[in-house]
Amino acid sequence: VPELDRDAHRLVVDGLVERPLELSLADLRERFERVRVRATLHCAGNRRAQLIEVAPVPGHVPWREAAIGNAEWGGVRLRDVLTAAGILDGAGHVAAEGLDVSYEPGEPTRFGGSVPIGRDAVLADEMNGEPLPPLHGAPLRLVVPGYVGARSVKWLAQLTVQHEPSTNWFQAVSYRMQRTLDEPGYALGETAVNSAIARPENGGRMRAGSVAVEGWATSGGDRVVERVEVSVDGEWHEADLDGAPLAGAWRRWRVVVEVAPGEHELAARAWDSSAATQPEDPRGLWNPNGYANNAWHRVRVVCD
Amino acid sequence: VPELDRDAHRLVVDGLVERPLELSLADLRERFERVRVRATLHCAGNRRAQLIEVAPVPGHVPWREAAIGNAEWGGVRLRDVLTAAGILDGAGHVAAEGLDVSYEPGEPTRFGGSVPIGRDAVLADEMNGEPLPPLHGAPLRLVVPGYVGARSVKWLAQLTVQHEPSTNWFQAVSYRMQRTLDEPGYALGETAVNSAIARPENGGRMRAGSVAVEGWATSGGDRVVERVEVSVDGEWHEADLDGAPLAGAWRRWRVVVEVAPGEHELAARAWDSSAATQPEDPRGLWNPNGYANNAWHRVRVVCD
Repeated sequence: VPELDRDAHRLVVDGLVERPLELSLADLRERFERVRVRATLHCAGNRRAQLIEVAPVPGHVPWREAAIGNAEWGGVRLRDVLTAAGILDGAGHVAAEGLDVSYEPGEPTRFGGSVPIGRDAVLADEMNGEPLPPLHGAPLRLVVPGYVGARSVKWLAQLTVQHEPSTNWFQAVSYRMQRTLDEPGYALGETAVNSAIARPENGGRMRAGSVAVEGWATSGGDRVVERVEVSVDGEWHEADLDGAPLAGAWRRWRVVVEVAPGEHELAARAWDSSAATQPEDPRGLWNPNGYANNAWHRVRVVCD
Repeated sequence: VPELDRDAHRLVVDGLVERPLELSLADLRERFERVRVRATLHCAGNRRAQLIEVAPVPGHVPWREAAIGNAEWGGVRLRDVLTAAGILDGAGHVAAEGLDVSYEPGEPTRFGGSVPIGRDAVLADEMNGEPLPPLHGAPLRLVVPGYVGARSVKWLAQLTVQHEPSTNWFQAVSYRMQRTLDEPGYALGETAVNSAIARPENGGRMRAGSVAVEGWATSGGDRVVERVEVSVDGEWHEADLDGAPLAGAWRRWRVVVEVAPGEHELAARAWDSSAATQPEDPRGLWNPNGYANNAWHRVRVVCD
């Protein structure tokens, strides 16, 4: 976690713009309208553990279903800042770079990535009504709802408007969907419909009868979660969804199912506004970095 | 097909706008920049036949995999016309209404539907460089890339900027994803990743050896097709994709596979830029109107 001085921090905005900007946090607060946006951030490798059961994924964290979180982000609109800089013809993408340095690429490299120029995003200095914590990217981070978490660059120092997507190592080389490690594959970006059971936990024991099953569901881009279903041993039940649909934010869900004594498999699947649902089987989704698993989430429970 | 007089036709733009407009085709041509956009239109019920194999879908056309087409649409941007009218605060959706009257809702009803206000779309009066044919909605139609075909309203006469989505029967009642016919379900909109094998046809006979497999792949919203794979009896091969990825337009694909004498199952699945792929099994996708099937497409062939 880089230790940054709030007062000295500057955001540089350059590239294909009429007026390059160098903005302090005070400039951002004074010159632009404040917004608060609920958005989910999730790791591209969330739910990798289920892929590792299919085949090994060396060198990556075996995330189960909790490499995900949802918060209310306070800050200013990316769009307003780019408009102030004056977007020039030919602009296709906005590349973000943070001040954290990784040695993973072989040489010290700042973390970065890009999103298409029209994408709604927030330059956030607050999280859930409090100043952004250092671990979450203080003093300033990008938050891109509906995209893999890697695009929500922390410790944000640079925005570059450019014709092509970012050539940063963490987009051009890493965070890609590959069939094999020796082909380039394609960059991750928008996320797909996904869901998981948070309770009960896999391997849990409980009393037979009415069991509350709860979890989260998300989609990507401008899509919203429309439906979640939970099966008990293959029989599907519709879950109640929390709150109104909002693109880029998760929906929590809950359903009470009747479970007889014995061992059972619970599974969850979500549907989004594109009428997409999750694939049944993780075997078709395995990839050598274990990204983007959205197979039905399954837990086994024993009821007494 | 309504028979319309090009010279007399008017497009009314009203609702949450500063300046309601009534535009002739000449006005549209004179006042707005011309664009040409390649876009795929597909029926929400495309590939319904595979769902009907799971369980009956009464009252609907048993489309196989060809209720889809791709064209270059010439016209003006929806966005430019709405900007000329002046979009007011609170605008969330733009509802389109055509001049074709359906008796399916029980009383004579014009066909219509809406898209979110920021969605890129074209008011098209040309198709593949020719005047728009009557069957395709002449003299003017809406073309909404990345959405179900039902949103690309033909014989377009009215655009209404409004707070909420369209209450037209063909969006509020029909073209919805339902679990059962007595629940409202949710409106179809953006489409999900999909693909199908066009050649060889199901039940085809051919010589064993090298067989060319060809087809189409699409996605919805701002997503593009990134990869197509074809399996021969469960073994997957990557197909070559035609052209550059373009949101809203299909990609044709082709792969040559080696096939031994005997009966074989070929299957196709696509991946899009959200790392979404198609579900394996149509059984989980069945719905009472047979919409939005994007299960792996399968054909059986016999090789001599």
